[in-house]
Amino acid sequence: MATVENLATYAARIARAREVMAQEGLDYLVVGPSSDLFYLTGYDAHVSERLNLLIIGKNGETAMVVPVLEAPLYAGRESLAPTITWTETETPTHKVAEFIGDATGKTVGVANNLWASFLLRLQNHVPGAKWETGNEVMRTLRMTKDADEIEALTEVGRRTDAAWTAFVEGARITGLTESEAARKLGEYMEQQGLAWKGGIAASGPNSASPHHHTGDRVIQQGDAIVFDWGSSWKGYKSDITRTVFVGEPTEEFRRVYEIVKQANQAAFEAIKPGVACQEIDRAARKVISDAGYGEAFIHRTGHGLGLDGHEEPYMVEGNTLPLEVGMVFSDEPGIYLEGKFGVRIEDIVYCTEEGGVRFNEANRDLTVMD
Amino acid sequence: MATVENLATYAARIARAREVMAQEGLDYLVVGPSSDLFYLTGYDAHVSERLNLLIIGKNGETAMVVPVLEAPLYAGRESLAPTITWTETETPTHKVAEFIGDATGKTVGVANNLWASFLLRLQNHVPGAKWETGNEVMRTLRMTKDADEIEALTEVGRRTDAAWTAFVEGARITGLTESEAARKLGEYMEQQGLAWKGGIAASGPNSASPHHHTGDRVIQQGDAIVFDWGSSWKGYKSDITRTVFVGEPTEEFRRVYEIVKQANQAAFEAIKPGVACQEIDRAARKVISDAGYGEAFIHRTGHGLGLDGHEEPYMVEGNTLPLEVGMVFSDEPGIYLEGKFGVRIEDIVYCTEEGGVRFNEANRDLTVMD
Repeated sequence: MATVENLATYAARIARAREVMAQEGLDYLVVGPSSDLFYLTGYDAHVSERLNLLIIGKNGETAMVVPVLEAPLYAGRESLAPTITWTETETPTHKVAEFIGDATGKTVGVANNLWASFLLRLQNHVPGAKWETGNEVMRTLRMTKDADEIEALTEVGRRTDAAWTAFVEGARITGLTESEAARKLGEYMEQQGLAWKGGIAASGPNSASPHHHTGDRVIQQGDAIVFDWGSSWKGYKSDITRTVFVGEPTEEFRRVYEIVKQANQAAFEAIKPGVACQEIDRAARKVISDAGYGEAFIHRTGHGLGLDGHEEPYMVEGNTLPLEVGMVFSDEPGIYLEGKFGVRIEDIVYCTEEGGVRFNEANRDLTVMD
Repeated sequence: MATVENLATYAARIARAREVMAQEGLDYLVVGPSSDLFYLTGYDAHVSERLNLLIIGKNGETAMVVPVLEAPLYAGRESLAPTITWTETETPTHKVAEFIGDATGKTVGVANNLWASFLLRLQNHVPGAKWETGNEVMRTLRMTKDADEIEALTEVGRRTDAAWTAFVEGARITGLTESEAARKLGEYMEQQGLAWKGGIAASGPNSASPHHHTGDRVIQQGDAIVFDWGSSWKGYKSDITRTVFVGEPTEEFRRVYEIVKQANQAAFEAIKPGVACQEIDRAARKVISDAGYGEAFIHRTGHGLGLDGHEEPYMVEGNTLPLEVGMVFSDEPGIYLEGKFGVRIEDIVYCTEEGGVRFNEANRDLTVMD
């Protein structure tokens, strides 16, 4: 059955969730299969048409609604939230309604990733309740990382860097398709004990599409290639981007590369407790705008990272949230010139009393590959 | 940019969706990143905190709300639904509200997999609308497969079978951990050109947990091992389960294995157009119950499969939906004896005028591995 560690940690997190629920005026918080659920219980529930749902009530009551055939996966965690199992011919949202009882005037917070199909059924089966986002609770807990989380993020960053260094030194990518080049990088990740679940390899003009779907284009001399990938370690993610050139870099590529590198550094140097998230974005954006490429930097500077590859806080204009010690996020400015090439340089960083610290230290200098 | 094929197919599917919307009384259907979206447009959108949303109106209007940095991935599909792009500092649900206009009295169907965070924002930003499930529309379209879909499902089933046959003949699993055994099976899948994204290998007493998380238990003589895995081909999934024994099978294992095999066959033979889905479940369950193991068959007999690994229709008691030609689903009865072992045998099958046809023909006889 499940090996259950750190039950005390999870219990403390649930207690903390309840404190924030009180501040937010929530009577209940419901959490489907997601990193939120894993954070609160360590239960890595299947995301599927079968409802798994953690219910936290403000008065101390909890329940874990779980399909009977998945109950063994939750075993050992009952002290956090007793199970309410449902069989294949029962309707789990009715069991949620029974547990909550009369919901008139009650406010239920819903964690982000629950499927709409379940929320709509809950809204039908638990009448009288008011449904709100539960994001404020979950982000308050998850945005600042504790020592164990920082350790896992440090380790996965270190291994990811090591894979990149070995890839750059050992691999030849000219003549490979993007998919083949990505797979080769995956081999170096696996040598570091990290699972490979795909990543972006965007070559030539494709590199100007920030979220390019890695495909069959053959890498050739004169290409810029954006590699953006990551893995996970003890549930915690890595996420890094490096842009290389095959053959002799053009003058324009060199210029753009240097600007992006300076923007990455400027954002990094802006990190300090109390600084608003949008200031990190502004620091990177100023470098790029001053150099005349402002219109070509079409995305925010960064996103939080932890159990999810993207999570709060977001480094984006309009986000006035002040940085706190322990916040972890990406620093990833980019310039995208349609039809030509793109450059992005991304590290995961975190905020300490003394300023930013990088989890990624793989070489950021302009790199040429064969 | 994106290679766009079969625009006519997608346009026809959107037109068909509109017909079912009319039957269901929906004014709008909204579809987030999911197989539903892929089915309707071929757009394999990122599932993330950035909203991608297809909007289909009953009067012919359509829109694809897409983050500006992901717009290149949608390029070429504008004839299906023109894009409404949003930048990093804009709120996409406000753009949805603008597109819909006055929603008072309008009913909006929501496809299953949209995150609750988005649905809650839509409910706030598009006031006056009534929100309902869009599942009836999407399942009506997706449950019966066309010839191209059947071809892809046939091919991925054939390759998955071939991987299993080679694995059983070529691999030795005694002394491996479950994870190592699964990874080895993955190598055989990759030799068939199929990506490996993990699967269930549940050994010894773990095999009694239907959705066991593959782990570090070492496979040893006297173990039953349930392998349940699949991959995808052109977006269409395979899903198969075989149970093997390491060493000389016990009498009890032989007996249970034979019962499960007969139940699998009974469900298969019950397939014919017009038969209710629950009858497929009943056919398998009767064999197992008659043999005295009814309480140990703790899950439904099957689930639909196509672009998703689990989709409608479900072979479960209470589902009176009649089978139609072209419906595809799993036939996977099982018996789970806690603390001892479990047996499950799963094939993907489809319904034809003449009855059931299996996509999986890998050997179902009791198999011993070293």
